[in-house]
Amino acid sequence: MALIVQKYGGTSVADLERIRNVAQRVIKTKERGDDVVVVVSAMAGETDRLLNLATEAVPGPDERELDVILATGEQVSSALLTIVLNSLGYKAKSYLGHQIKISTDSVHGRARITGVDADKIFSDIREGRIVVVAGFQGEDEEGNITTLGRGGSDTTAVAIAAALKANLCEIYTDIDGVYTTNPNICDRARKLKRISYDEMLEMASLGAKVLQIRSVEFAKKYGVTIHIRSSFNESKGTIVCEEDTEMERALVSGVTYDTDQTRIEITKVPDLPGTAAKFFDAISAADIVVDMIIQTSSLEEGYANMAFTISKVDFPKALKVAQSLAKEFGAKEVIAEEEVAKVSMVGVGMRSHSGVASKMFGALAKEGINIKMISTSEIKISCIIDAKYTELAVRSLHDAFELGKES
Amino acid sequence: MALIVQKYGGTSVADLERIRNVAQRVIKTKERGDDVVVVVSAMAGETDRLLNLATEAVPGPDERELDVILATGEQVSSALLTIVLNSLGYKAKSYLGHQIKISTDSVHGRARITGVDADKIFSDIREGRIVVVAGFQGEDEEGNITTLGRGGSDTTAVAIAAALKANLCEIYTDIDGVYTTNPNICDRARKLKRISYDEMLEMASLGAKVLQIRSVEFAKKYGVTIHIRSSFNESKGTIVCEEDTEMERALVSGVTYDTDQTRIEITKVPDLPGTAAKFFDAISAADIVVDMIIQTSSLEEGYANMAFTISKVDFPKALKVAQSLAKEFGAKEVIAEEEVAKVSMVGVGMRSHSGVASKMFGALAKEGINIKMISTSEIKISCIIDAKYTELAVRSLHDAFELGKES
Repeated sequence: MALIVQKYGGTSVADLERIRNVAQRVIKTKERGDDVVVVVSAMAGETDRLLNLATEAVPGPDERELDVILATGEQVSSALLTIVLNSLGYKAKSYLGHQIKISTDSVHGRARITGVDADKIFSDIREGRIVVVAGFQGEDEEGNITTLGRGGSDTTAVAIAAALKANLCEIYTDIDGVYTTNPNICDRARKLKRISYDEMLEMASLGAKVLQIRSVEFAKKYGVTIHIRSSFNESKGTIVCEEDTEMERALVSGVTYDTDQTRIEITKVPDLPGTAAKFFDAISAADIVVDMIIQTSSLEEGYANMAFTISKVDFPKALKVAQSLAKEFGAKEVIAEEEVAKVSMVGVGMRSHSGVASKMFGALAKEGINIKMISTSEIKISCIIDAKYTELAVRSLHDAFELGKES
Repeated sequence: MALIVQKYGGTSVADLERIRNVAQRVIKTKERGDDVVVVVSAMAGETDRLLNLATEAVPGPDERELDVILATGEQVSSALLTIVLNSLGYKAKSYLGHQIKISTDSVHGRARITGVDADKIFSDIREGRIVVVAGFQGEDEEGNITTLGRGGSDTTAVAIAAALKANLCEIYTDIDGVYTTNPNICDRARKLKRISYDEMLEMASLGAKVLQIRSVEFAKKYGVTIHIRSSFNESKGTIVCEEDTEMERALVSGVTYDTDQTRIEITKVPDLPGTAAKFFDAISAADIVVDMIIQTSSLEEGYANMAFTISKVDFPKALKVAQSLAKEFGAKEVIAEEEVAKVSMVGVGMRSHSGVASKMFGALAKEGINIKMISTSEIKISCIIDAKYTELAVRSLHDAFELGKES
């Protein structure tokens, strides 16, 4: 007999028919003899509806109050699922964040979980109940309602699994696992059986939106094994767990991409101490999040080129800052590119294998794709390219590293 | 400087435009130098939408879980109003039932408030904040969410006014006060300036749906003065307060009616000890709420007639019980009347004046309206009549007692 935490996303509880399907899946687990704790998201579209209502009242609504409104989405879906479970003859009980003390800091809209009181859940489990928890929400020290940001229910599920020392945390979503790349772009994309926490972190932050990043960090910290799978079929998904030797044998695990990228370069900046610091102070003062940063020597001595990437939404602000600083520095010009993309290779195998970078650059060169910027980490290599080549680059890299083949 | 509790009903917060109007009204009170605590209902239609969602999932949903769903209506409206107040530069904070410990018993769907912890509210008031409370909801001893039944926000407001020892509890609704009778039926209906708690209780329970009955009981118990008024204009409404000599001078305060009535009579029941008890045991076992009960001697000695009224929804059940018992008792027949109504005169003046009953019966007789049943209390006389005469009866009584004239 195991203790399983199951998390169902918004599309899995989008309407009453789907909520009934979820109930059947929960019951199946229970009937198998396992104890089940369920975490649910809001019904698909509900969080957006609530957000619109609040921003229609006032653009940029008070964050404490916005969280009070947003938290109702999961409140409704958790009670609906519980109602269905009860009607089918299973003892079930719903809990909101404050009722089982999902404690968080006070950063409304993206609060971090600091603790979960497992006692109430354990006492219900001992009495044979199925416990249903409203995801996405918690309570800060002063008793204010907080929310955890988009995808926050993933983190709720993992935090509860950690607090209960559950055997497994199943994340049910509308895709059936983590793929070597996006199957819509590359039909040779293959579902991964296992992936390490670190790879998953890189995949998620690079645009393969499967799990909230924080949930993976949480899972890594507490050693929670996650099973990502679909709520619409019975097939096995992808296990996210500690690195093992099999993963290390593979050179890379996947190719990801992110088209929400723009690039700004300032050329021929006089290379004086403190210039870069001054520049990035101004950028961060404008509340712009910079992704990649590269400073290179200019061809002329005593000058440097500075390039960085930002998301599309920050582009106009960033361009303004760059232009004003370029003038101040006496730089040559500002080159702005709105249509770029980032493609990345991810894999823990890189730690022990060399040659990934040259193979990657070779594959792109073979297709005539120019690399504008490169950045690397221990388990990832990213290149900025023209956005129009995104799909071609992904397919080429997927083929070059033979990701379609079972490793 | 006074402390005012203001309650806004569902129609007063039906959309963002109206919520902005409510905010202006709250601010006006604040600017006058008073402290304000606001209680809001769910946006009009929202409670029904949520109820439908739950009953569509499962007819007769689990009551604990239904309350979790229904409570979200007030959660959203209270935060929306707070967002608007904040955006206008006023410090405001919303609270849910559990956050300010609105303690209730555990009767889901119609819980009774047992206590309110005023400390948190007082500390916000001291810091100059406007406090906005989600009405209709509370928390039981185990930390479960409870709701107070239709109109429950009225009771929330009065309970908070009692706990804070507020100077006044203003109930804003879509009508501008309590009238001598329904103005839609009788154009001579007059708005009452003042009405006693006891009269209000009789008016409310007799079908003049202005305030939740429990809120009036609560107000009476703790001496909370209520001002019922419209959120759509500035005119003064009706004060509900302790009886005073002015009220006692008037013979009656109003005429009310209730068309949700049916009548069943069993004739010629053998008049044996315990027959009535047996009969009403069976009725209550079938979960039927009986309103008026009259047992009269039959013309033949040793027999009695038993008549009672019930609401339309209970009629089919009650008729079945009556028919089966009539057979068992060997009674003569069961007379069922589905189209009856109850008209009532209410007034604390009845305590000290006689002649109300004869004047009432005379007025009805003059119009040829037959009285089928009569029941009286200290401050009320009710008659059951043919439903088709309801409006005529109300107008005749209103005129006979000269209720259109200022007393």
